[in-house]
Amino acid sequence: MPNTKPTVEVCFAPPLYEYKLTQENYITVVVDILRASTSICTALYNGANKIIPVPTVDIASTYIGTGYLIAGEREGIKLDIADLGNSPTQFTKENVMGRSIVMTTTNGTQTIEMAKTADQVAIGAFVNISILAEWLIAQHTNVVIFCSGWKNKMNLEDSVFAGALCEKLLANNEFENICDSVSAALDLWSIARRDLNHYINKALHNQRLTRMGFEDVIPYCLSNDLAPVVPVLKDNEIVKA
Amino acid sequence: MPNTKPTVEVCFAPPLYEYKLTQENYITVVVDILRASTSICTALYNGANKIIPVPTVDIASTYIGTGYLIAGEREGIKLDIADLGNSPTQFTKENVMGRSIVMTTTNGTQTIEMAKTADQVAIGAFVNISILAEWLIAQHTNVVIFCSGWKNKMNLEDSVFAGALCEKLLANNEFENICDSVSAALDLWSIARRDLNHYINKALHNQRLTRMGFEDVIPYCLSNDLAPVVPVLKDNEIVKA
Repeated sequence: MPNTKPTVEVCFAPPLYEYKLTQENYITVVVDILRASTSICTALYNGANKIIPVPTVDIASTYIGTGYLIAGEREGIKLDIADLGNSPTQFTKENVMGRSIVMTTTNGTQTIEMAKTADQVAIGAFVNISILAEWLIAQHTNVVIFCSGWKNKMNLEDSVFAGALCEKLLANNEFENICDSVSAALDLWSIARRDLNHYINKALHNQRLTRMGFEDVIPYCLSNDLAPVVPVLKDNEIVKA
Repeated sequence: MPNTKPTVEVCFAPPLYEYKLTQENYITVVVDILRASTSICTALYNGANKIIPVPTVDIASTYIGTGYLIAGEREGIKLDIADLGNSPTQFTKENVMGRSIVMTTTNGTQTIEMAKTADQVAIGAFVNISILAEWLIAQHTNVVIFCSGWKNKMNLEDSVFAGALCEKLLANNEFENICDSVSAALDLWSIARRDLNHYINKALHNQRLTRMGFEDVIPYCLSNDLAPVVPVLKDNEIVKA
């Protein structure tokens, strides 16, 4: 355990990741609330063996007929080659228990690819926030919360989650806040927490998903601790910590 | 005047600028509240003829002995070659009336360089916010508010200014909000506006400037309409609109 406190930093969108202050000894927490990080937590909680995140549809295609479940979307729409889309409600025990899953999504799996420069990569969502915070605190190392956003722009749902997670990490003064992004995330969360479902109504990706008929998954994605596992990347596979 | 409303978008830091949704028919408003954009407004308001923003110290050096005032800093410290640093309090009538100024700063002048892809570039700060908003509304074109941040990261002071400016643009329903960054900026501003000077105490660059003895300029930088001019870029020179 080091003498100085570990630091916490937030990146609101992928283009900001290379400019983060934290460059050594850190865990990156990848966030894609609607829906990849929520789905990954749900799949592992419901008994999936592992999830292999891949950045492109082409790579996902190479797993056809290999026994892997293929999960994936682009622009929110399930891929033709996929068994499952990217809705956490599809990652039921019946669908995923004992299975290995290959996943590719518009934003989340790209972010995981970028995050691999970290010493460790974990997956964060409201559905695993408490156990994730406890696990991060126990690691005694620097944390970078990496929001996937939407096509290289920030989004509200990932940003307010970053604030909620920062609040838990900073609550007992065990981390040092080293950037204005943390302060901004905490402020956004202070507004959103009053009524998170109502707040996220104004998020553009919520509106996009609602137009596509996925609005039923949003309250689940915004609920705390429904899939209490800590997904971490090991040898390019996401497994329970 | 087009049939559809013009759009407003916010970029919280330079790496996000190339991914903005707005790619045609737009004015970019460059923001660097502490201190470049505030100083530019102040200089023009106090009678400077024009300001030539240059990205590097080397380019600024080529103006030595040419009759231009040289203004510039790196990491907050006035350059050896400069007549003036980057504090708006230095751009007094006595110092700048009738003069042409070459300026290079850590963040703001880099942002101006990047912004040149826009159809028009304007400079925004609290000290010119009302006249700037009026001018932007009168242009009936899309607006991108481009925050300089600090070394490619977002900062609080530019972000809450973006929110304050968005509020003015959206007040009469004359612009369309097309990104979550606008919503986030508005939310941050809704908190900061209660006591802006107190709010900005937690901004890291405020703390940096205070350590360097520049804390006297911060209340000025956070005051509305003390330098009511609209600086715009014309042929690589910043002049009054």
